[in-house]
Amino acid sequence: MPTPEVEVLAANESFYDAFSRHDITAMETVWSQRTDLACVHPGWDAIVGRREVLSSWRAILASPEAPTVECHQAVAHVIGDVAYVVCSELLPGAELCATNVFVRESGAWKLVHHQAGPVANRMEEPRPVRVPKVLN
Amino acid sequence: MPTPEVEVLAANESFYDAFSRHDITAMETVWSQRTDLACVHPGWDAIVGRREVLSSWRAILASPEAPTVECHQAVAHVIGDVAYVVCSELLPGAELCATNVFVRESGAWKLVHHQAGPVANRMEEPRPVRVPKVLN
Repeated sequence: MPTPEVEVLAANESFYDAFSRHDITAMETVWSQRTDLACVHPGWDAIVGRREVLSSWRAILASPEAPTVECHQAVAHVIGDVAYVVCSELLPGAELCATNVFVRESGAWKLVHHQAGPVANRMEEPRPVRVPKVLN
Repeated sequence: MPTPEVEVLAANESFYDAFSRHDITAMETVWSQRTDLACVHPGWDAIVGRREVLSSWRAILASPEAPTVECHQAVAHVIGDVAYVVCSELLPGAELCATNVFVRESGAWKLVHHQAGPVANRMEEPRPVRVPKVLN
């Protein structure tokens, strides 16, 4: 039986899979339908509310400039039925760092909040090797 | 009796108060001592672990360039004993957007994760807080 951390990391991967495939139906499934949502896209103000958050994703994924994204170095922090993942996002020409908050609803981990922001000076700094930590 | 949202917003305010007063003792009190910690300073990779997170704050608050910060538009999202706040941070010459995750421990809301990133086009040119690289 998978640990909660493994389940949360799988839900996190589903988010990036929907993002990279520009699949709005999959993206809508990733986000919670019961808990209110929030989202901070890089350089944007906060967006609050399911309708507003999903509208922003529809606009992003429908754009011909919608990027692909790879998630790396994801670490899941599980606190009961809430969890957050901190991970690196690699986009063409940019690296971001992200926080994704999940809630367990009827056994499924659903995304309720996402924030991503740029990592500066990536090309000039050596990349530290990090040991993934699974936390309780 | 205050609602959980009011309590969480008060804990969030304590974080920004400690930050603005450059008070490392108060900052250490704001963060959880039981749950493992994570932090994403603007422009930097994720920091994981209580020792590492608090070391980064000691370095920031001890710096002669440590900024003051005002928190605005804070919205608390409470999910049982876990909560996250999304808010705006106003620093001299820059505006950031932040996510702060709290856990209720023995009745007190304690910070377990913080991420802040720049809001583009808000002012002249957002300047990320310079965080000394004390890790890895």
